[in-house]
Amino acid sequence: MRNVITLTTDFGLRDYYVSAMKAVMLGIAPEARLIDVSHDIPSQDIMAGSWVLKNSAMLFPSKTVHTVVVDPGVGTERHPIALQVEDQYFVGPDNGIFSLLTSDRDYSAVCLTRQQYLRDSPSSTFHGRDIFAPAAAHLSRGVPLGELGEPLDELVSYRWMQPIADKDGVQGTVIHIDKFGNLITNIPQVLIKEVVEGKEVKIYIGNVILNDISNTFGSVAEGEPVAYIGSAGMLEIGINKGDAEEMLGVQKGAQISLVLQK
Amino acid sequence: MRNVITLTTDFGLRDYYVSAMKAVMLGIAPEARLIDVSHDIPSQDIMAGSWVLKNSAMLFPSKTVHTVVVDPGVGTERHPIALQVEDQYFVGPDNGIFSLLTSDRDYSAVCLTRQQYLRDSPSSTFHGRDIFAPAAAHLSRGVPLGELGEPLDELVSYRWMQPIADKDGVQGTVIHIDKFGNLITNIPQVLIKEVVEGKEVKIYIGNVILNDISNTFGSVAEGEPVAYIGSAGMLEIGINKGDAEEMLGVQKGAQISLVLQK
Amino acid sequence: MRNVITLTTDFGLRDYYVSAMKAVMLGIAPEARLIDVSHDIPSQDIMAGSWVLKNSAMLFPSKTVHTVVVDPGVGTERHPIALQVEDQYFVGPDNGIFSLLTSDRDYSAVCLTRQQYLRDSPSSTFHGRDIFAPAAAHLSRGVPLGELGEPLDELVSYRWMQPIADKDGVQGTVIHIDKFGNLITNIPQVLIKEVVEGKEVKIYIGNVILNDISNTFGSVAEGEPVAYIGSAGMLEIGINKGDAEEMLGVQKGAQISLVLQK
Repeated sequence: MRNVITLTTDFGLRDYYVSAMKAVMLGIAPEARLIDVSHDIPSQDIMAGSWVLKNSAMLFPSKTVHTVVVDPGVGTERHPIALQVEDQYFVGPDNGIFSLLTSDRDYSAVCLTRQQYLRDSPSSTFHGRDIFAPAAAHLSRGVPLGELGEPLDELVSYRWMQPIADKDGVQGTVIHIDKFGNLITNIPQVLIKEVVEGKEVKIYIGNVILNDISNTFGSVAEGEPVAYIGSAGMLEIGINKGDAEEMLGVQKGAQISLVLQK
Repeated sequence: MRNVITLTTDFGLRDYYVSAMKAVMLGIAPEARLIDVSHDIPSQDIMAGSWVLKNSAMLFPSKTVHTVVVDPGVGTERHPIALQVEDQYFVGPDNGIFSLLTSDRDYSAVCLTRQQYLRDSPSSTFHGRDIFAPAAAHLSRGVPLGELGEPLDELVSYRWMQPIADKDGVQGTVIHIDKFGNLITNIPQVLIKEVVEGKEVKIYIGNVILNDISNTFGSVAEGEPVAYIGSAGMLEIGINKGDAEEMLGVQKGAQISLVLQK
Repeated sequence: MRNVITLTTDFGLRDYYVSAMKAVMLGIAPEARLIDVSHDIPSQDIMAGSWVLKNSAMLFPSKTVHTVVVDPGVGTERHPIALQVEDQYFVGPDNGIFSLLTSDRDYSAVCLTRQQYLRDSPSSTFHGRDIFAPAAAHLSRGVPLGELGEPLDELVSYRWMQPIADKDGVQGTVIHIDKFGNLITNIPQVLIKEVVEGKEVKIYIGNVILNDISNTFGSVAEGEPVAYIGSAGMLEIGINKGDAEEMLGVQKGAQISLVLQK
């Protein structure tokens, strides 16, 4: 049973865009259970959408169909695609939004070209309603992936800057800032273990210097900055009961340095 | 089976208003499947709600019940109503919010007066919870429309300004601005075909002049303005990978002129 | 059948937090029906979350499981708990968020300590995904409350300031401001009946004085302030088709005085 369909978009909820997608899905797959993942992805921010997918899509029950529409190139020559990654299905534009999911997993992908699985005369500006919603609904009803169109061997790939580690420490970047103002970096826990664990380190970010990596916010006093391994398995910087983005004056793309002390 | 109930409100999600409606619905119709259409309709903006309905409600499966609460006149003499439009049901205030749906379709309507289908002692300020949610839930369980109250022959009607076409071209208005800053006008595709197609035209909007109508955003360079027929079948103005509202300095109600070139 | 699970958080929807919780829930309880109550509780505002719960949770069908994550102390020594209040279940942090529900109702509570009902190696910063979502899903599948952990006799309790009534009238406080700018006070209808009803009264709030308590917004002209008993059973101050917060310059915590006229 593939009856869960999730929706991840940058559409917001003040327009008819999300509603029209849900209507089309239920029209084709009346038994589908629609789960809103997010409609607040920042407009046209492909990597923000990719980050949400990376950290939650693979936790869903087997055969969930994920509909993902962050699509600044709608109507241009970018491909509309469907793919299977392990036991999950995905539908959306081939613009890099699946990069973080597929970078370390096998997948198979098709280009959504079969007319009978799309709405009649698809518009050039709303593939969410006319191409992705119907494809997701058909997948959820059991149509095999290969039925939806021709195989696609390679997807558009988009990568974050990788952290740089050497004998002096690690140089990283802030890749995401969450709703609470916590700064998520591109430095994974495994790199911290390898390079930093058991050693003395100073962490430079914005206008502060931190001296260690804690377990959680509450390890420091209220209003104090803290470095910790976040729930996505990356090094994060937060403020106990505060907003690090605001208080440290740091933005997405900012540098973070972990300097080993000798 | 009428078990899909949609919710469209201007309530936002930081208060208990949406939650209380959902609770009342599930209390009466435990098998109902609740679909959030929007809770981000701008406060008390009846026509913004009507626009969302117009462009998505009729796409839902047959016998869907749509609950619509944008209700600046709650507690006054405006009628709480239910109506059937083709194979869809609607519940909400009779304040014009159904105008765009009913302007070119047959419908039958009743005034929600039967006590047994409302909550006991309805409040004067929250008909969403006390009148519309229970009525929607009863409709979804199969109670006939006519059971809910007395027939109502005429609904409050609210119309947008109509575009004006003559031998010189078309004068229109921006009726909606979407989350991406795209400007949706009151000029339908059919009027464009009739008056403009195959002719040379200049389009005046805000501080720019456009020379043609394209298929999609990607037809122009990034950051450039573009006129196209949007997914609602109306002429729209957007910016490729940009925000037309902001970049053209245009607001809802602004004029747009299509001038034929001789 | 306990198959409705609600979610109330301050997570917003631009991150993966809500999505990860839904994924974990559906993984454990594939038949669960997930109902979004709110993800727009102001960040870390425990009492705003408590207010939403107080005014809607008990309206849900019997055996609904409410998952509540407004959790500024995540990872510290505050207990993760589950409780039963009448015929409803709740899961969340023991930080006072259940205060308004439990202040006048019997309940039984347990501390979520049984490993087999949590995710493996729970993170220190995301108990929503690792502790509360799995506990809620297990409850919804029928696991008895007592199975989830050891009983907890007393919960953290947080109370709003109580209104003060004497022979001169009532002194109260604005405890919540809703999305429309309506000011909700801590003065319940029953106190109004007891002290004010049938008497002449002047109501002082911000920079205005009102002379009576009306039934609804529409009792006054557009743009005029109005006092009325709101849908939560408390005295509220609003503006007919306007925003009282903005127009009266009043904030949460502001004083309101009802002075009897002799």
